Amino acid sequence: MSYFRDNIDSMTAYVPGAQPAAGETVIKLNTNENPYPPSPKALAALGEFDGERLCRYPHPMAGQFRAAVASVLGIGEGWILPGNGSDELIVIIARACAGSNRPIVYPYPTFEFYLTQAQIENAGPIQVSFDDEYNLPVDGLVAAGGAVTYVANPGSPSGTAVSNDALSELAERLTGVLVIDEAYVDFAESDSLELAKNCDNVILLRTLSKGYSLAGLRLGYAVANPQLLDGLAKVKDIYNVDCIADCVGAAAFEDQAYKIATAAKVNASRAKLTSDLEALGWSVLPSQANFVLVRPPGGNAQQVHQSLKDRRILVRYFNSPKLDDRLRITIGTDEQNAAIIGALTELKED
Amino acid sequence: MSYFRDNIDSMTAYVPGAQPAAGETVIKLNTNENPYPPSPKALAALGEFDGERLCRYPHPMAGQFRAAVASVLGIGEGWILPGNGSDELIVIIARACAGSNRPIVYPYPTFEFYLTQAQIENAGPIQVSFDDEYNLPVDGLVAAGGAVTYVANPGSPSGTAVSNDALSELAERLTGVLVIDEAYVDFAESDSLELAKNCDNVILLRTLSKGYSLAGLRLGYAVANPQLLDGLAKVKDIYNVDCIADCVGAAAFEDQAYKIATAAKVNASRAKLTSDLEALGWSVLPSQANFVLVRPPGGNAQQVHQSLKDRRILVRYFNSPKLDDRLRITIGTDEQNAAIIGALTELKED
Repeated sequence: MSYFRDNIDSMTAYVPGAQPAAGETVIKLNTNENPYPPSPKALAALGEFDGERLCRYPHPMAGQFRAAVASVLGIGEGWILPGNGSDELIVIIARACAGSNRPIVYPYPTFEFYLTQAQIENAGPIQVSFDDEYNLPVDGLVAAGGAVTYVANPGSPSGTAVSNDALSELAERLTGVLVIDEAYVDFAESDSLELAKNCDNVILLRTLSKGYSLAGLRLGYAVANPQLLDGLAKVKDIYNVDCIADCVGAAAFEDQAYKIATAAKVNASRAKLTSDLEALGWSVLPSQANFVLVRPPGGNAQQVHQSLKDRRILVRYFNSPKLDDRLRITIGTDEQNAAIIGALTELKED
Repeated sequence: MSYFRDNIDSMTAYVPGAQPAAGETVIKLNTNENPYPPSPKALAALGEFDGERLCRYPHPMAGQFRAAVASVLGIGEGWILPGNGSDELIVIIARACAGSNRPIVYPYPTFEFYLTQAQIENAGPIQVSFDDEYNLPVDGLVAAGGAVTYVANPGSPSGTAVSNDALSELAERLTGVLVIDEAYVDFAESDSLELAKNCDNVILLRTLSKGYSLAGLRLGYAVANPQLLDGLAKVKDIYNVDCIADCVGAAAFEDQAYKIATAAKVNASRAKLTSDLEALGWSVLPSQANFVLVRPPGGNAQQVHQSLKDRRILVRYFNSPKLDDRLRITIGTDEQNAAIIGALTELKED
């Protein structure tokens, strides 16, 4: 006898990347966090935040943050729905749109949390494989007939990006919503904001966890036409974003110059790490994100993962098809990246 | 053509109590916030929080806060599941347990967010009316056969409490889970922690929004046996509680003395407000929460609500059966309560 729905009983929980214990010093390159601190303006907003305000409920739509996003992106506030991280927005969309006979579809491999949502909503999933170059399988995704199609762009764990032309064709041919998850867009060459403005079935998701160094704050937002967001808002929690995130997130978002400069540093380090890995004989997928998906010369990824862990360097290993001969390495500071190259050089010599 | 599930299209969004615009001075007694500031220890923890930590993801189980709750309550950490407010935990339970043919059940009237969850999950609801004394309708609730039965205790908007004997009988006779929502327990004479420890189908929900004056922080927790919580954890977002809430919430929770003293002040004010209202001819339900449900002598609640609003005093009016002749008034400071009594006295004389 179980108290849960059958599909909940039969699923397993999403397992996040390992977190070092408090006080443990490791080089943490396993969960795609930004190695640089948040904007000084965000830190100042936190320092000045009046804690006594916490006795009141927050603005139900994170009004201060939403206004900042609207102003920076040059769109109306009705086009923006803030969330407790973009994870919450992924959930809201699944709850509002997916279900049995209303499948969740995505190209594989991708962010595993989409699978979790499909399992919870009993909505497939239908997974359509990327080819080896990670081109978007448009025909297969359309044929799958998703009520919700999630495409992470740039993708995780591949780091590769697909073109706006491919996404635009996909949006046009789908009968359900197309969710373009731009968690890593701050490190990419282009974005799909225009697509969200022009297609009535496109929802853009963004987060402050990566480009803005605020993974610990839990703040993201959706961009879509107001009609679509009105439906999603029915499903969100009453007060989903706390007062501090509303205030600090607004300050961080307004400081675009800092975010752009930080992303440029990360991208320069990505280029260096890529060439260093290639020099060691590793193959590296072309990345537009703050990480690289890489294959060691022998394909013994699991073993290298463990050897790095023994040296207190955490990277991400996925024991899944198409991924089990690879590692996903977050771009760290140049010192951290040098440390991992040093360790891999040593391992090679062993 | 809609992109949403039919049940989403046909429902309306939960409408939270009105929020005054920034800079507007009102006496806000409409959303059951605590009139006193958070614990000085919580404010100190916020002041000392190192913002640079925000570049990392939080502990997926809000480890610091969970440890504080475990220590104060004297239970194992496996018995505690933190959430982004107890609202998120209400959602998680609905998603994990309810659905078509797995109805959500609750006594009516109650917190309307349970209805919202039933609509989203296409899970009824089955509402079982309280009698006029707000006794728990145990037989009716059992007969309804809920996969999830939500009982707010003390209840909102009534403020009344039901006995542990009634809840214990209900838990024993139900085949699904019994969620005892103790959002207002800090103002009550007793709680149901022992019931959660002893019954394998009871989930206790608590929040820091009310007794701890932290509505703006978004933090709550569930107490239930670890097996039940393992199932619920599958449904929660990966990192549902932010780093700041984890840290500040722990400091607030450890300061039980402050919370108890604040609740005692609120309860003393509740007694005074109750007798003042009764002196004006209003009927007041016996409350164990930080608000009272009251009936004006003529029953013209909607009109009084508007007249108070014109005087910049916000209280809550529900245009619903059994409630539309009443107002829910949050207990404020003695000054705020005196202001509302003054306004009502004036209105009586008009």
